[in-house]
Amino acid sequence: MAVTSSTITVDMRGDCHVENITSKVQKQLQDSGLQGGILTVFIKHTTAAVMIIEDEPGIRADTKALMERLMPANPNLQHNTLNAGEDNGHSHLRGQLQGPSVTIPFNEGVMTLGTWQQIVIVDYDTRPRTREIVIQILGE
Amino acid sequence: MAVTSSTITVDMRGDCHVENITSKVQKQLQDSGLQGGILTVFIKHTTAAVMIIEDEPGIRADTKALMERLMPANPNLQHNTLNAGEDNGHSHLRGQLQGPSVTIPFNEGVMTLGTWQQIVIVDYDTRPRTREIVIQILGE
Amino acid sequence: MAVTSSTITVDMRGDCHVENITSKVQKQLQDSGLQGGILTVFIKHTTAAVMIIEDEPGIRADTKALMERLMPANPNLQHNTLNAGEDNGHSHLRGQLQGPSVTIPFNEGVMTLGTWQQIVIVDYDTRPRTREIVIQILGE
Repeated sequence: MAVTSSTITVDMRGDCHVENITSKVQKQLQDSGLQGGILTVFIKHTTAAVMIIEDEPGIRADTKALMERLMPANPNLQHNTLNAGEDNGHSHLRGQLQGPSVTIPFNEGVMTLGTWQQIVIVDYDTRPRTREIVIQILGE
Repeated sequence: MAVTSSTITVDMRGDCHVENITSKVQKQLQDSGLQGGILTVFIKHTTAAVMIIEDEPGIRADTKALMERLMPANPNLQHNTLNAGEDNGHSHLRGQLQGPSVTIPFNEGVMTLGTWQQIVIVDYDTRPRTREIVIQILGE
Repeated sequence: MAVTSSTITVDMRGDCHVENITSKVQKQLQDSGLQGGILTVFIKHTTAAVMIIEDEPGIRADTKALMERLMPANPNLQHNTLNAGEDNGHSHLRGQLQGPSVTIPFNEGVMTLGTWQQIVIVDYDTRPRTREIVIQILGE
């Protein structure tokens, strides 16, 4: 049993920008040489999330619309009113509800994703940012 | 430290059908012979989720009503309008928000579930489907 | 590769009470002596959740307001009407949607949390309770 850790960075535009990182995660798994185990994809930010979705344009648009409906931008959120210069209270609510990580099994060096499952990061912030994602792999 | 992987299949009816898989997961843990570690229960589908709930009829009904209120079926979702024949945009939104996996510690060969915690899968799709669930166990 | 398991207890007041347990988790990681791997923080209750947030008073208040807006207390929830004496159907819906655990990588003995990421438990129940949280660490 061994552990490998790597970090990738992705330039994101905010405003529910979605980026597919499935092939990057699979590349790290291949490089690890590990055959069976679990891996955790963890984004080091509170206004972004890691998700597993069917990644097609309709789902991307529907996800953005859902987040805007359930947790709209709102200048009266206390994160905005209590902290000078902040306007991203809704970005926090979206990111923390969805969560910063996913954990995925792998066998024979390949993740056990279903046919339509893709790993994406979603950036809910109000401005472009470079995001760091840790890929931690445990296995043998 | 060792890894074991197994897959179970469950016939689901869709429409927020809930199935309790706690005893099936515990059986896989017993069969592994591992005493301490973590296990990940991962469903290989984008329109279903793995959850931990108090599994009684009231919670099942309330969960269905919540999903229908927050993410109702809607022919105008772009997943439906952009992809011929699709009607399950809301199923995707529900599945991906809840998430496809849970990770649970175990000690002395038993999961550290609380008194009322049960592992269930929930199928949000619009038709019956057979679902595959991977149970990945790491420990010693 | 080794596994360590520890349990901490926290007295919570319910009603979206938030408690920051980051330093307690880091203490368990230090005590384990493990340098690289993953850890899972798992709360053994269905009406509470583990979250990663930017922990400042505005976010705490906004999180409470969001939960009250999306999943308000409601005597007509079937968990309440079908089970004598129950009034916490909304607490279940909140806890199970957010989820009972987070899994976090660590390297050189330190979790890979971003600058603003803090680990908190949130108690959605309708009365004060003592909560048990398992911290399971796998690594080398």
